[in-house]
Amino acid sequence: MAVGTELLLGQIVDTNSSWIGEQLALAGIDSHFQTKVGDNLDRMIAAFEQALDRSDAVIVCGGLGPTPDDITREAIAAVMGVGLRRDEAVVERIQAMFYRRDRQMPANNLQQADVPVGARVMDVQPGTAPGLICPVRRGPTGSGAGKVIYAVPGVPWEMQEMVSECVLPDLQARAGERHVIRSRTLRTWGHSESGLAELLEPEMSRLDSTGEATIAFLASGMEGLKVRITAKAADDETALSVLSGVEARARAVIGDAVFGADDDTMESVVVDLMQSQGLTLGLAESVTGGLIAARLTDVPGASRVLRGAVVPYDREIKTGVLGAPDVNAVSSEMALAMAEGACRVLGADVGLATTGAAGPDPHEGAEAGTVWIGLHLDGEGEATRVRFNMARTMVRQLGTITALNLLRTRLLTRAG
Amino acid sequence: MAVGTELLLGQIVDTNSSWIGEQLALAGIDSHFQTKVGDNLDRMIAAFEQALDRSDAVIVCGGLGPTPDDITREAIAAVMGVGLRRDEAVVERIQAMFYRRDRQMPANNLQQADVPVGARVMDVQPGTAPGLICPVRRGPTGSGAGKVIYAVPGVPWEMQEMVSECVLPDLQARAGERHVIRSRTLRTWGHSESGLAELLEPEMSRLDSTGEATIAFLASGMEGLKVRITAKAADDETALSVLSGVEARARAVIGDAVFGADDDTMESVVVDLMQSQGLTLGLAESVTGGLIAARLTDVPGASRVLRGAVVPYDREIKTGVLGAPDVNAVSSEMALAMAEGACRVLGADVGLATTGAAGPDPHEGAEAGTVWIGLHLDGEGEATRVRFNMARTMVRQLGTITALNLLRTRLLTRAG
Repeated sequence: MAVGTELLLGQIVDTNSSWIGEQLALAGIDSHFQTKVGDNLDRMIAAFEQALDRSDAVIVCGGLGPTPDDITREAIAAVMGVGLRRDEAVVERIQAMFYRRDRQMPANNLQQADVPVGARVMDVQPGTAPGLICPVRRGPTGSGAGKVIYAVPGVPWEMQEMVSECVLPDLQARAGERHVIRSRTLRTWGHSESGLAELLEPEMSRLDSTGEATIAFLASGMEGLKVRITAKAADDETALSVLSGVEARARAVIGDAVFGADDDTMESVVVDLMQSQGLTLGLAESVTGGLIAARLTDVPGASRVLRGAVVPYDREIKTGVLGAPDVNAVSSEMALAMAEGACRVLGADVGLATTGAAGPDPHEGAEAGTVWIGLHLDGEGEATRVRFNMARTMVRQLGTITALNLLRTRLLTRAG
Repeated sequence: MAVGTELLLGQIVDTNSSWIGEQLALAGIDSHFQTKVGDNLDRMIAAFEQALDRSDAVIVCGGLGPTPDDITREAIAAVMGVGLRRDEAVVERIQAMFYRRDRQMPANNLQQADVPVGARVMDVQPGTAPGLICPVRRGPTGSGAGKVIYAVPGVPWEMQEMVSECVLPDLQARAGERHVIRSRTLRTWGHSESGLAELLEPEMSRLDSTGEATIAFLASGMEGLKVRITAKAADDETALSVLSGVEARARAVIGDAVFGADDDTMESVVVDLMQSQGLTLGLAESVTGGLIAARLTDVPGASRVLRGAVVPYDREIKTGVLGAPDVNAVSSEMALAMAEGACRVLGADVGLATTGAAGPDPHEGAEAGTVWIGLHLDGEGEATRVRFNMARTMVRQLGTITALNLLRTRLLTRAG
C-alpha cells in the first residue's frame, strides 16, 4: 500500500511499490495486490481492512513524516484498535540525528516517535521516521499467529534499507518454507505479440500443467517485444535449470527474432556483432532523422564501430552530400543509393539507410507510414519496404528498430 | 485498476495509472484508490468487487491483448454475470488493421473481439484492442444508474486516446455538474528546481493564502523543468482568468527561461522561431550523436527548416566531411569549426554543433560530462561549454536541450 495524494494525482510515479514487488518476488513471497491511497484517514483504514481481508501481511509505504498530512500511524492504530504512545527510544534517535547534523529539531518531528500501542519499532532506522511492525487480527483472545502490517517511510533509500534488512527476513521467517523466483527476459523483434503467443502455445500449455514456470509478453515500442519467463522453485539451482530449459525451447520456436536477453538492447547487440566481425558502420537517415545514430551512440564504446551518420533531410543533401541520383526520395533506388553513399562518404564497411514518409501527410507519392530501408554490405545492396499505420513518432521509432534488426539478421547470416 | 503480473513483479512501473490520475484530477473527477492486480481471474474479480464497493466507476487498464494471459474481458463478464459474444464490427476493424499493414492476422487476434454481453465498444480504437464501457450493479431489476467499468488497453498511446476521447467525457456526463480544474504548464530550461522555487516564492505564498491556484514543479530530464499552475473554480472563465494572472506573474520572474507552454516543446519552439526568421539549420552532432536531429525531425514540417545533420562520430569525419582542423575534438575550436562546417556542407544559414565526452570515460583529455556547443549564425561563431556530472545518457540528453536552448535564446536576441 503506497500512501500519498500526490501519487493519485500523478504528480509523482509510485516506483517504491515496483521495487518492493521485485524484492518480494526474489524472496519467494507471493504478492498479489498493490494499492495507492491518498492522505485520508477513513480511506486509509478502508484500504488496510481490504488488504488484510485478502493477504497475510501488508507493507505500507509513506505517511510517516512529521507534517499534519502524515497519518499512517493513526490509521494503523485505528485498525489495531489501540492508541498511540510516545516511544522514548525513538525520541532519542531523532534528537541524536538532528544533533549530528548540527540542526535544531523542529517540535513536530517528535510526532514521528508516536507509535501504536503493541507495535514494535524496527531496529533499522536510516532517517527520522521509524519503521513499524504491527500485529493485527489476532482473534478475539489475542491468540493465534494473526496478521501483520509493516510501515516504512516513502523516502526510497530509507524504505529500501528497512525492507531489505527487516521486512523481508521477518516475512520469510513467518512464511516458514521458502522458495525462490527467478526470471529471464527474451528480447525479440519480428513477430507480433499474437504471433509469438501462437509459436509458444505448446510450451505455455505444458507449463500450465507442470506449473514450473510462466511466460508473459510485453510490448515495448521501439525496444521490441519482450518474452518474460518466470520460474518458482525450492532453490536457485532448480529455478535456473527450469529457466534454461524453457528458454531453450522458446528460442527454438522463435528463432532469430530473439535478438538478446535481459539487459541486452538492439543497439548493444548490433554494436557487439559489428565489432566481432571487425566492421564499421555509416548511417544515412532521412525518415528516422537521427534516431538510429542516437540509439547506437548511447552504447559506451560505439565509437569502435560507428563512423558517423548523415541525416539528409532536404533532398539536396541526399544528392549533394551522399551523391544519390535524382530519383523519388521514397523508393528502393533512393534507399540503396543512400546506403552506398553512407559507406563512401563516411568511409564505412557497412551502410544503413532509411527514407520514407513519417506522416501525417504522404511524401513524394508514398503513403504516410512507409519506410524504405537500404543496406549496403560486402559490395551488395538490398532494400526492404515496411509500413506502419501509426502516428509519426511511432513510424519513426518502429522504422528505427526494424532497420537495426535488418542489419542484425544480415550480420548473423554473414557469420553463418 | 492496472492489470499485469509484470507490474506486481516490478518488471515495469505502472505509469498509466499516474497519467490517468492526472487526467481525472484535471477533469474534476475525484479518484481515491489505484490498485494493481496480476493476470489471475479470481483475484481480478475480487479486485473489481472491492473497487466497485468503494467507487462509482472503475477504469481498468491492460489485459485486453490477444494472448492467453489477457483475461480482463473474462473477469468483467464474470463481474457482470454475463457471457462473452464476438463483436463482428470489432472483427472487421482488426482485420482491416492487419490488411493495412500488409500482414496476416493470427487467429488468436479474434479473441480481442470477444466482449461481455451488454458492454458497449468504444468508438475510438487506435490499436487491435477495443475499449469497453460495461454497466454493472444496476440493481436486481436492472434499473437505476448503476456503476460502470471502463476497460482500456495497457499500451500507453492506445489507452491515452481512449481515456481522453471517451472515458473522461462519459465520466463527466455521468457526474453531472462539476467545478472545473484547469492547468497551464510553463516549460522552462535554465534554472534549477530550487532556483525556480526561490523566484516563485512570493507568488506561491500569495496563492497559499488566496487558495485560488497551486504551483508545482516537475523535473522532466531532456524536456526541461515544468512549472505547473492549477486553478480550481466554478467555471471555465474564472479558472482561465486566474491562470492567466498567475502565468503573467510567473513569466515576469522566470524570464526567457520559459521557452513555451503546455504542448510546446523545445524542438517545436525552435522550428517555429527559425521559420519565422526565414532561416535554415544544419547540425553537426558528435557527443549528442543524432539526438538533436531526432528531436527536430519529430516535429511535423521540420523539413521547412532543417537541411540535415552530420554525426561525425569518428574524428576523421570531423576533418574529412566537415572540414574541421586537426585540433582537440573536445574544444571550443572544434565546436566552432563543426558549426561552420555544418553551414557550409549542408548549405544552411545556421550551424549548431556539439562535441564532448559523454562518459563513462574521459575523452581527448576532457572530463566525462563535458559538452561544447558551437553556434554559427550571421557569419559569427560562438562556443559554450557546459558540464553535467551525470551518467552518459543524461549527459547526452541534457546536452541536447541545452544546445537547442542556446539556439533559441540567440534567435530571440536576433529578433530583438
